[in-house]
Amino acid sequence: MTEMSSGSSFAYMSADNIKGLMLALSSSIFIGTSFIIKKKGLKRAAMNNVRAGLGGYSYLWEPLWWAGMITMIVGEAANFAAYAFAPAILVTPLGALSVIVSAVLAHVILKEKLHSLGVLGCLLCIVGSTSIVLHAPAERQIQSIDDIWILATQPAFLLYSFFVVVVVLVLIYHFATIYGNTHVMVYISICSLMGSLSVMSVKALGIALKLTLQGINQLVYPQTWFFALVVVTCIVTQMNYLNKALDTFNTAVVSPIYYVMFTTLTIIASVIMFKDWSRQHPSQIITELCGFITILSGTFLLHYTKEMGQNYKPPGSYSGLNTSFPNSQLVAKQPDSDSFTKEAVPMCKFELFCAS
Amino acid sequence: MTEMSSGSSFAYMSADNIKGLMLALSSSIFIGTSFIIKKKGLKRAAMNNVRAGLGGYSYLWEPLWWAGMITMIVGEAANFAAYAFAPAILVTPLGALSVIVSAVLAHVILKEKLHSLGVLGCLLCIVGSTSIVLHAPAERQIQSIDDIWILATQPAFLLYSFFVVVVVLVLIYHFATIYGNTHVMVYISICSLMGSLSVMSVKALGIALKLTLQGINQLVYPQTWFFALVVVTCIVTQMNYLNKALDTFNTAVVSPIYYVMFTTLTIIASVIMFKDWSRQHPSQIITELCGFITILSGTFLLHYTKEMGQNYKPPGSYSGLNTSFPNSQLVAKQPDSDSFTKEAVPMCKFELFCAS
Repeated sequence: MTEMSSGSSFAYMSADNIKGLMLALSSSIFIGTSFIIKKKGLKRAAMNNVRAGLGGYSYLWEPLWWAGMITMIVGEAANFAAYAFAPAILVTPLGALSVIVSAVLAHVILKEKLHSLGVLGCLLCIVGSTSIVLHAPAERQIQSIDDIWILATQPAFLLYSFFVVVVVLVLIYHFATIYGNTHVMVYISICSLMGSLSVMSVKALGIALKLTLQGINQLVYPQTWFFALVVVTCIVTQMNYLNKALDTFNTAVVSPIYYVMFTTLTIIASVIMFKDWSRQHPSQIITELCGFITILSGTFLLHYTKEMGQNYKPPGSYSGLNTSFPNSQLVAKQPDSDSFTKEAVPMCKFELFCAS
Repeated sequence: MTEMSSGSSFAYMSADNIKGLMLALSSSIFIGTSFIIKKKGLKRAAMNNVRAGLGGYSYLWEPLWWAGMITMIVGEAANFAAYAFAPAILVTPLGALSVIVSAVLAHVILKEKLHSLGVLGCLLCIVGSTSIVLHAPAERQIQSIDDIWILATQPAFLLYSFFVVVVVLVLIYHFATIYGNTHVMVYISICSLMGSLSVMSVKALGIALKLTLQGINQLVYPQTWFFALVVVTCIVTQMNYLNKALDTFNTAVVSPIYYVMFTTLTIIASVIMFKDWSRQHPSQIITELCGFITILSGTFLLHYTKEMGQNYKPPGSYSGLNTSFPNSQLVAKQPDSDSFTKEAVPMCKFELFCAS
């Protein structure tokens, strides 16, 4: 019998992956905390003035709101840096941890109730993240932006990018006008598809900046500027349609669907472009997927119970609906006098700039 | 970069582990199905006669009930055989899959409603089981019952057995009489502690029988008969106190707590006796534990939603209770005219002989 015949899984936790993991974790802590600070700022501003939900802008005079905004920007920067060190397959799903940080802090600081199923949701996010972290592939060693350019111009990834662009254009110019305000999937699909490309470009740009800071200047390459252009284009499109989605539908509906689609498409894009899975054993790939499904279940539970706490109806009343979200799946958002307490925590890091 | 530097995880799936896995899976299918067949038999018997819940025994004349009983015995035999091939750490948690088989068949055949959170619970059980199966240690190669005897008489395992026996005796002769009918943990602790020893002895006996069938007669060793004696003693004690627990408390409360305690203690016993974890890398142990927590969450959700479906109260009404089961945590069982439709599916394989 071979004693300790394996022992390879931790070898996978390369120094770079550990750096990326730490950055991703601190990003989640910053972003999760920022939401609570902003919410406290909004509440304090609302005590004396017109609430944000009713169109007031008094929160702009509240230092706490700005502190939250800065915390969030620090978190986004850490997230950006994380992509320069570890594969997207490791960094992206860990975004769910910011929701846990928010949920726990909301319970402790804002005294919001946390349903026992919500606690279970948090536990599942942690367990799933642990599985992914332990079995994520090591980051490819990249020497220059040229290496990334070669990866990005392989037929498979070009085909994926072409597919994304075509589908997004069809969605924007055909479906968005007809179904945009009635079908939540239209706007979210646009955001998620663009999101998968923006993460790939953010990663390319992050690596270029890392190499430049290490003394290997990458700013002389036109490819670096091309990736910068893609990042800007993708993020502007994403933010535009995410704002539309959040304006039209409840955050509690938009957030988890967006998280699932965005993370899934990003993993697919990363697997195609960086061939993450070609360097892995099938059992590790399956374990990663199990971890991912566990995280998805956890976030689903967290949001499901958030719905239950707010306007819960007993099970019988929505027995006809087999979809995941009981009350408001495709229901357009109603004007809401207390929007900042009802809004769910934003779940994707790029989403945060949109939700006040 | 080392390509495929790992690739060891599947090496862990030894031929014996695969046999054990197949036996454990078929055991779960048989046991899960048996419950539905018995329930159909009970329903059919109740159409013409006094219901089992009201003390009738007409189900004994119903062939379907007996078919279910036989299916269950086949399942138990497969479970017993599984322990002869694969470590308890692999076989025991897979018992949760019988609950999924029951839940799905109850939905399809008995047309019982399955809450969307129940579906999520099933998914989590599958995902958690997959993680455990992929990362379970290989079974030790055992040549004779003497090898097992050596493992069972190490100081660490003797200490564990001594601890179990002392705690069980204290529980039986001191706490059971005072708190037995008010605290659900008393009877369940007795069952679970004894259960962990009975699984270890069942495993010893299973291996002895396997070796005997292979031509290496183990029946001449007194150790084989000692293990047989332990199995009988433990299972009789277990069944006795499990019946008491089921008589006193709702199955929906007893089953999941028993599953969690029984499985956890069995894994601890197996880790101490067979030193399963000494042959494993920390990342694999952590992944196993993640898988186990995922299964526990899944079974919790399945039972939680079963409660919700039956006598659900909106979240506010039990906000004072922070324990896992909202309504009936420590509430003694009420006489129930419809017990066989309300009873939850038994979750531990040794439990099945008790719940009609």
